[in-house]
Amino acid sequence: MEFLVRFETFLPESMNQEAVKALKTAERQRAIELREAGILKRLWRVPGRRATVGLWQATSATELHEALASLPQFPWMDVEVETLATHPQEQ
Amino acid sequence: MEFLVRFETFLPESMNQEAVKALKTAERQRAIELREAGILKRLWRVPGRRATVGLWQATSATELHEALASLPQFPWMDVEVETLATHPQEQ
Amino acid sequence: MEFLVRFETFLPESMNQEAVKALKTAERQRAIELREAGILKRLWRVPGRRATVGLWQATSATELHEALASLPQFPWMDVEVETLATHPQEQ
Amino acid sequence: MEFLVRFETFLPESMNQEAVKALKTAERQRAIELREAGILKRLWRVPGRRATVGLWQATSATELHEALASLPQFPWMDVEVETLATHPQEQ
Amino acid sequence: MEFLVRFETFLPESMNQEAVKALKTAERQRAIELREAGILKRLWRVPGRRATVGLWQATSATELHEALASLPQFPWMDVEVETLATHPQEQ
Amino acid sequence: MEFLVRFETFLPESMNQEAVKALKTAERQRAIELREAGILKRLWRVPGRRATVGLWQATSATELHEALASLPQFPWMDVEVETLATHPQEQ
Amino acid sequence: MEFLVRFETFLPESMNQEAVKALKTAERQRAIELREAGILKRLWRVPGRRATVGLWQATSATELHEALASLPQFPWMDVEVETLATHPQEQ
Amino acid sequence: MEFLVRFETFLPESMNQEAVKALKTAERQRAIELREAGILKRLWRVPGRRATVGLWQATSATELHEALASLPQFPWMDVEVETLATHPQEQ
Amino acid sequence: MEFLVRFETFLPESMNQEAVKALKTAERQRAIELREAGILKRLWRVPGRRATVGLWQATSATELHEALASLPQFPWMDVEVETLATHPQEQ
Amino acid sequence: MEFLVRFETFLPESMNQEAVKALKTAERQRAIELREAGILKRLWRVPGRRATVGLWQATSATELHEALASLPQFPWMDVEVETLATHPQEQ
Repeated sequence: MEFLVRFETFLPESMNQEAVKALKTAERQRAIELREAGILKRLWRVPGRRATVGLWQATSATELHEALASLPQFPWMDVEVETLATHPQEQ
Repeated sequence: MEFLVRFETFLPESMNQEAVKALKTAERQRAIELREAGILKRLWRVPGRRATVGLWQATSATELHEALASLPQFPWMDVEVETLATHPQEQ
Repeated sequence: MEFLVRFETFLPESMNQEAVKALKTAERQRAIELREAGILKRLWRVPGRRATVGLWQATSATELHEALASLPQFPWMDVEVETLATHPQEQ
Repeated sequence: MEFLVRFETFLPESMNQEAVKALKTAERQRAIELREAGILKRLWRVPGRRATVGLWQATSATELHEALASLPQFPWMDVEVETLATHPQEQ
Repeated sequence: MEFLVRFETFLPESMNQEAVKALKTAERQRAIELREAGILKRLWRVPGRRATVGLWQATSATELHEALASLPQFPWMDVEVETLATHPQEQ
Repeated sequence: MEFLVRFETFLPESMNQEAVKALKTAERQRAIELREAGILKRLWRVPGRRATVGLWQATSATELHEALASLPQFPWMDVEVETLATHPQEQ
Repeated sequence: MEFLVRFETFLPESMNQEAVKALKTAERQRAIELREAGILKRLWRVPGRRATVGLWQATSATELHEALASLPQFPWMDVEVETLATHPQEQ
Repeated sequence: MEFLVRFETFLPESMNQEAVKALKTAERQRAIELREAGILKRLWRVPGRRATVGLWQATSATELHEALASLPQFPWMDVEVETLATHPQEQ
Repeated sequence: MEFLVRFETFLPESMNQEAVKALKTAERQRAIELREAGILKRLWRVPGRRATVGLWQATSATELHEALASLPQFPWMDVEVETLATHPQEQ
Repeated sequence: MEFLVRFETFLPESMNQEAVKALKTAERQRAIELREAGILKRLWRVPGRRATVGLWQATSATELHEALASLPQFPWMDVEVETLATHPQEQ
């Protein structure tokens, strides 16, 4: 199953620059792993915002939630999931 | 996978009473079949409205869409689907 | 009567890890008691969010409120209650 | 249990004046019966609109739905129900 | 004139427990006075929230505002007022 | 008491031009009477729309509703009323 | 040109009482000047809120913005401006 | 003064093709006149919709309203006007 | 450039079945052409609705609009376009 | 391609006056460079708010994002981008 996942990250002002940098590196690393696992398929940036739209694939909403919750920035992310069905023209 | 499905039916004023009655009988019949197939698990009425909330189970959003589209009133239904993940307390 | 209850929990950044852990343990414990009392019937996770949807049963909105307010995380929960009526197909 | 019920009635332009008049008389008659039964407790008009706010009492959302659906104008009413809990100051 | 007043109270996390307790006692006391003055007629709790719906009576919106602003928790309350007209069935 | 009243008029496409003209003349006439009665105090047009914002004065929401309902176009108007309180700087 | 301006003021909890008092005095003083200059014509309170609705007059949106920005509380105000056109009945 | 004007046109299904064509020609003609008069400065299409965003200039909201109302399609247009102030960087 | 395009189709009740069938065949045919041209890249169905989400590619919003407007069902489609920027992880 | 970009800046209360001043000077400087590069074409102020509407030009949403992200106040700006297509009347 495919899902359209939209998230925006709000790191607290009080977090120090080093922690932010470490977090972003870890985030990128985890994203690479999720791509290799075939769970994260595409990622776009929403122009003008610290937000992304992504195309994800998982066997269920539970598996998708676990993948999203494994992202290091997850505690500071506002996430919206839209479940997609296959379009007849693509079958 | 479980889905929370909310729908509200708007039959056109111009539809004659017999057609409405036949449609409702067919709808009930199809709902019974979907329950027997384990796809439609629970159904509630939203008080004061021609609307229902239902708990559905399907292997994917595509299978769910096919079940919903098989309802005779589907062309006049406004449907909203919310995908649910398993809660850790229920595993 | 059954109710669909949706809540999302926002613990303050400043709460220390131990307090969070104790709170979550107490929350789980209270949820088990409410299940055993037949008040909390089902719980789902909203994928991608620290939010849940639950099916609750109570004799009135007042009894439901008391059950919700007895949850240890209640002071940090944003709660929305939707009252459900019985659907004719389920009578 | 008490409920706050808000409804707005939209009779179709095509309905003839006599039918409208008969419907309104029947509506008023049914409202009187619901008051006598202690189900409809108060009714206010929303200024400037063909809308009302009412205070209703019923043992459950299912009983409330049946009372609302018994109103002759129900097929043309847009209804919103808000369930109320008892306030500690009123116990 | 009657008004439907909806409010939700958000005391700051930093307020100490004693101040909260004193504030709540003062709030209850002022509510009793407003009831005795015939301004506050009914109060309900919104299930699951720190919010109330109330039925208030005042000769004008200005008098209503003064009554609301006299509540000790007013600086931390988010208030919404809906003005009600008399329904013909109640005249 | 003063009220801010916003309305937008939607005459049906099927109404013939003469009926529209007669309705608009009657509307203007009734507005003049309401101004002379001191109920309608000011009227503005919302630029680009068939909508107006008006400042009205009435002793209660019930009196205001009766004034609004006396407008010949009332059955085709979507009306929103906002109740205003006196500002301390104007007392 | 006339404008309907709605604003709500949110002073930070941390501002001390003396600063608040001085700010409110300065605000009232500036409002009096803007009234004398014919820019601020009427002011109402939104019942139950720290918000006002005002009728302002200025030769352009730029002049209006400068008048609003000259208010001492401007940095803490959430402002919404609605531009009004003259209604034919008032010409 | 400059205004950002957004409109979307909804011609009724029942209008015949010739009337539509004549209306569109008249619309284009009137738009050219408004451009030559310096009132309509720029026009963009909202991708995927029968909607436009335009930059208009007028001495007041009243003059703008008259220009918009002079468009032949005005009776079928849903219009939203946003008033713009001069930015300090452009003075 | 890539765009996320969401559309929902509302054919009028009065359209006869043959016209609907012909329209759907033409729609499918045009979609195939747009895929072959590399403009329409992916298409999903929104479960429970006559709506789709699609991933489109075009050199500009103008080219995208032309592609969308070339769809035979375009006059009855409600379309929303979201422009996507390239995510750094995909460069 | 042209874009309509709306942003509102929320500098934290805790930022000291000198830092604010330096930030604003840097912001103005960067805006001048973007104008000279032909990317920022027009800028307006939303009356009553710390918000602007701007007309931007870029070859893609990615280039636009980079221009916006190069603004020194970007970390504190809430940005909304609307992509514009060329209107046939302007070709």
